[in-house]
Amino acid sequence: MSSFKSEKELARGAIASRGLAVASGIFLLLSFLGPVAASEPLPSWRAGGAKAEILAFVARVTDETSDEFISPAERIAVFDHDGTLWAEKPLPFQFFFALDDLRRRASDHPGWHDEEPFRSLLAGDLDGLGTDAKKAVAQLMAETHAGMSTEAFARTVGEWFQTARHPQREVPFTDLVYQPQLELLDYLRQQGFRTFIVSGGGVGFMRVFTEETYGLPPNQVVGSYGRVTYSYDSEGSPVLLKEPAMDFVDDGSGKPVGVDRFIGQRPVIAVGNSDGDFEMLEYTLAGEGARLAVLIHHDDAEREYAYDRRDSLAKLDRALDRAMSDGWTIVSMKQDWLKVFPTAE
Amino acid sequence: MSSFKSEKELARGAIASRGLAVASGIFLLLSFLGPVAASEPLPSWRAGGAKAEILAFVARVTDETSDEFISPAERIAVFDHDGTLWAEKPLPFQFFFALDDLRRRASDHPGWHDEEPFRSLLAGDLDGLGTDAKKAVAQLMAETHAGMSTEAFARTVGEWFQTARHPQREVPFTDLVYQPQLELLDYLRQQGFRTFIVSGGGVGFMRVFTEETYGLPPNQVVGSYGRVTYSYDSEGSPVLLKEPAMDFVDDGSGKPVGVDRFIGQRPVIAVGNSDGDFEMLEYTLAGEGARLAVLIHHDDAEREYAYDRRDSLAKLDRALDRAMSDGWTIVSMKQDWLKVFPTAE
Repeated sequence: MSSFKSEKELARGAIASRGLAVASGIFLLLSFLGPVAASEPLPSWRAGGAKAEILAFVARVTDETSDEFISPAERIAVFDHDGTLWAEKPLPFQFFFALDDLRRRASDHPGWHDEEPFRSLLAGDLDGLGTDAKKAVAQLMAETHAGMSTEAFARTVGEWFQTARHPQREVPFTDLVYQPQLELLDYLRQQGFRTFIVSGGGVGFMRVFTEETYGLPPNQVVGSYGRVTYSYDSEGSPVLLKEPAMDFVDDGSGKPVGVDRFIGQRPVIAVGNSDGDFEMLEYTLAGEGARLAVLIHHDDAEREYAYDRRDSLAKLDRALDRAMSDGWTIVSMKQDWLKVFPTAE
Repeated sequence: MSSFKSEKELARGAIASRGLAVASGIFLLLSFLGPVAASEPLPSWRAGGAKAEILAFVARVTDETSDEFISPAERIAVFDHDGTLWAEKPLPFQFFFALDDLRRRASDHPGWHDEEPFRSLLAGDLDGLGTDAKKAVAQLMAETHAGMSTEAFARTVGEWFQTARHPQREVPFTDLVYQPQLELLDYLRQQGFRTFIVSGGGVGFMRVFTEETYGLPPNQVVGSYGRVTYSYDSEGSPVLLKEPAMDFVDDGSGKPVGVDRFIGQRPVIAVGNSDGDFEMLEYTLAGEGARLAVLIHHDDAEREYAYDRRDSLAKLDRALDRAMSDGWTIVSMKQDWLKVFPTAE
């Protein structure tokens, strides 16, 4: 119909030209260093194991002569966020924002100190929230930020990240992303995949840092969101105001719904780490043709955290059973990752 | 934090290399043809007028030395669909799908011939639906497709497009996209913009053809959508089933909400053609820095259709007043477009 190039065609061109650049870079490097593995993808992944499974899968679906070839337009990879791309212990990091935010506001709301769930939260007692703590915190955030514009909320989150530190490791939270996953995102993009976050976390919270941290623009970040209304501020300027109610919870069986709503294509690769990702991984695998489900298993108490079947906030039980019975790719953080955090030695 | 390249950085590389290729192409062409305007963007737009305004705006915001420079990460352009990227007369094209679909199903529902709104629709009488015909048809589609999987629905739409013809022009509906707009989408992408459709139309309907037609992958198409539930088919395979209710209507004040939810950034350029786009254009212009609102005015009864203030389905009244008072860019289809449809002479 016309000779225009789509964004993806442009990107494919980029990948091709980048390939050339990488190739010449490697050539230069080899002249100095000899035959090192400079071109080896996923350098923070130990050879063999999960890495071998992932590389073999990607090689098959990107090989035009393979029966399992998947066109670039169909190459969608989705990643859960908390516990999959960055750490989530001792609490999902958004909780720390919520707690700090509540403490900051508590001086204007003296009643909170006697009222649940505020009392428990202000005391740092998550058990007071019951088993569905994630949903409770999301609802609480929606209520306490009602009437705030989405842009003012984003500024508040951005300011918090400037000074907030992980309570145990005393580093900025964005230092606690997983180096092997940054490499996996990068590798998949080089192989023509479009990459997305699909998280139970709040989309307005994540989008503040996901572009800088993961190279993912806001429209490639899917998450839970509250109701928002179009309104006008006191100067008559249009704003989007947050309402005191959740509109969509992107967790569990909500994740495939979020994928369909925001991405509109069934993923080829899905990566998660808890039962909240079960349906997204199951839905991905049920598509026609080659599909890959990857489960990150937190089994490294020394370098990160170890938790699975008995964890209250990020239980990995049903998905681990299915992964073992159906041959999903299980990533042992202890065995498969040479390095966990970018700043680690 | 790491040396990975984001998708946008890759795309920027592509744009740069494509620029070189285009430059050498032009050089070759010039050797044969002399100094023709082979490199002139937007060839189906008449020089001056709206074209000059658009080109001047894009030049300003992409010039790194300009005070109004906007970084590529912020370059978002949103387009309404019906009446902005393709025709919408005598009825929005999705209505023809709805009518054909109802007729096909009516044999299984003899009661429909006596029951509103089915009776009116089957008789082709849109007046019977009242003033909010668009919402009524969306609701009706949601009800009649309840229990169908999203993928089965997409197949049904795809099959319909194979044989459906415009009742007056007797061509496939996708032939009735606007050639000048295909060029504008292409031009903006080359200038580093990410382009999106933000339409009141059903997202599951549009995404069937928007990639091939406009070069827009499904995740860059925002629209109205119904409720969907994760379920399992009779063989135990997971499916997303359509529910008999709308979840989000992406029209009027819903459009800025849809923009925030799906794109997560305030657009720099917004293009529409009716009062249903008013809030999206207003919201775009209210952002800090340089912004552009473009209104397509259907004033060409000879080559397309002429309608504005008194149209019942796509009224352009309030937005036209604001455009004139505030100096929005108004595109006269008659004056500003040398060609309307790609297949026209």
